[in-house]
Amino acid sequence: MKLGRIQRDSVDGPVARLVSVHPDEERVVDLVSAERLRLERQGATREAADRYAHALFPASFTQAVSLGPRLTEAAAEADDRAGSETSVSFAEISWLPAADPPIIRDAISFKKHLEAYHDAIGHDLSSMHYEVPAYWKGSPTQIFGHDAEIPHPHYTDALDYELEIGFIVGSRGATLTPEEAKSRVFGLTIFNDYSARDFQGPEMLMRMGPAKCKEFAYGIGPWVTTIDEVDSLEQLEMSARINGEEMSRGMCEGLLWQPEETLAYISLNDELRPGDLIGLGTVGDGSGMEQGRYLKPGDTIELEVSHLGVLRQRVSDKQTARWMPAARG
Amino acid sequence: MKLGRIQRDSVDGPVARLVSVHPDEERVVDLVSAERLRLERQGATREAADRYAHALFPASFTQAVSLGPRLTEAAAEADDRAGSETSVSFAEISWLPAADPPIIRDAISFKKHLEAYHDAIGHDLSSMHYEVPAYWKGSPTQIFGHDAEIPHPHYTDALDYELEIGFIVGSRGATLTPEEAKSRVFGLTIFNDYSARDFQGPEMLMRMGPAKCKEFAYGIGPWVTTIDEVDSLEQLEMSARINGEEMSRGMCEGLLWQPEETLAYISLNDELRPGDLIGLGTVGDGSGMEQGRYLKPGDTIELEVSHLGVLRQRVSDKQTARWMPAARG
Repeated sequence: MKLGRIQRDSVDGPVARLVSVHPDEERVVDLVSAERLRLERQGATREAADRYAHALFPASFTQAVSLGPRLTEAAAEADDRAGSETSVSFAEISWLPAADPPIIRDAISFKKHLEAYHDAIGHDLSSMHYEVPAYWKGSPTQIFGHDAEIPHPHYTDALDYELEIGFIVGSRGATLTPEEAKSRVFGLTIFNDYSARDFQGPEMLMRMGPAKCKEFAYGIGPWVTTIDEVDSLEQLEMSARINGEEMSRGMCEGLLWQPEETLAYISLNDELRPGDLIGLGTVGDGSGMEQGRYLKPGDTIELEVSHLGVLRQRVSDKQTARWMPAARG
Repeated sequence: MKLGRIQRDSVDGPVARLVSVHPDEERVVDLVSAERLRLERQGATREAADRYAHALFPASFTQAVSLGPRLTEAAAEADDRAGSETSVSFAEISWLPAADPPIIRDAISFKKHLEAYHDAIGHDLSSMHYEVPAYWKGSPTQIFGHDAEIPHPHYTDALDYELEIGFIVGSRGATLTPEEAKSRVFGLTIFNDYSARDFQGPEMLMRMGPAKCKEFAYGIGPWVTTIDEVDSLEQLEMSARINGEEMSRGMCEGLLWQPEETLAYISLNDELRPGDLIGLGTVGDGSGMEQGRYLKPGDTIELEVSHLGVLRQRVSDKQTARWMPAARG
């Protein structure tokens, strides 16, 4: 099953709707509309059907997955019985970010990128990277969905993309084993961890982790594919295109750490929570840094992963500065 | 005004309640109870009064401050007219963490601690610390209130406290100037950023920021004091005690970065959101690292800040490991 979010108009302004996605037919089903209609046809009042449908399929992806297995059961049922009047074709859709994670964590699972970015930035590669699965945390306020425009911060001249797979957590767990962590995964999505490469080197010298070099934009989408549809990561073919030109293509391979090891380690004396997004980290050759080509205003960047779709975004004009701190003497 | 959260019993199990706090009288007012009773006395039905009171004073501090200035107006009104039947004395209270931030950010505002921890850990002090106000981000799942027991992770033998002031954000803002950022502050609380010192050095070599060395426990409380009650940070006297023995005492001084500069910088291409907690960073001499005394199982740690109260917590027995990653070859 594939679930996503779209924006629709209402008397109260734009609202978000959870949808089931049929990529082959280029259409989605608005799950609230489908469930409400189904219940009304069974004799429910409009008000009761509406209340129930919204409780089952909230606009927030995080709230939706928080319901546990009942979500996909109910979504499959609603999708299966939906008439064409609750379908929306891709051509008419305004996509929202597929997920709205409470927090973002991004790991470094792929050996090739780990070594390449240390080389490019000129930092020593700590042996700790081979002791534990490293990850950093991101504030999740700047999330962009399919077909959105992402901001070009004023403070970078080396705006980059990162081709990643994002794991979406389905249920809570703390201090898990890898096997337990595996059972907490809800699904996968494409994750573009945009980076300001020229700010990353200096910023990370402070050892506080990425901040302004990363958090100005995350691409998440176009939808979330439930984990049962992906037999193994190694089967996933991944590619990146700038303005239609292929920058890289390869399989999802070369893992230093398995996803379940990373998830278990993240949960140690912390928690995985429903809706959390955990990026596996950039795949080998999966960024412009490795190709010598950064993003410019007006560029279109497309990330494609088999089974997961294509996440396409445009780069805005370069922003202007409002305020920056003055250096201390 | 001082606002906090306590736990009360109900037919559905323990529930959280927002309270106004009167430290001098050692009592709090349960704001939902006070508002409901006031409305019932005016002729509202029990159901309508209850619905309204819960909408005004939700159990989540983040949801409560999200209402904007109406929260403190309404709380002052409810508190002012509350009868003794809606008061709870300190002796009977089970405190909850004062705030439940969506994300935690912790800055390094104090020059003395910045230099001391680099010395202690043996890391080079990057000149970037004098270019921008550094901060790191924390997953907010492990938050502990006043009188709680905090966990002693299995992987540390150098458990430490950090004496900090936490800023609570009252309203949303992105890419703010310092003046604008200042207007977004709701209040202050005591923030204990517990640290595993022996894990901090190796972990931060990866430059991903603190993770397991920090996120296993945050102390937040005992309540939040609104910003109008604090004329200037410099007037705040801060002290720390282990098992009643004073470890340090001093004023909140030696700021490398002003709080509004840090908040404005955090908001750059990101957002401040209602309920966010931003720690200013450890004050000079404000940790055991600087005193050569770490926390042991059974220890009681008290942080006291004038106007903000005393935040007291106990250290649990040392935990045992369930799983740790095996190093890669």
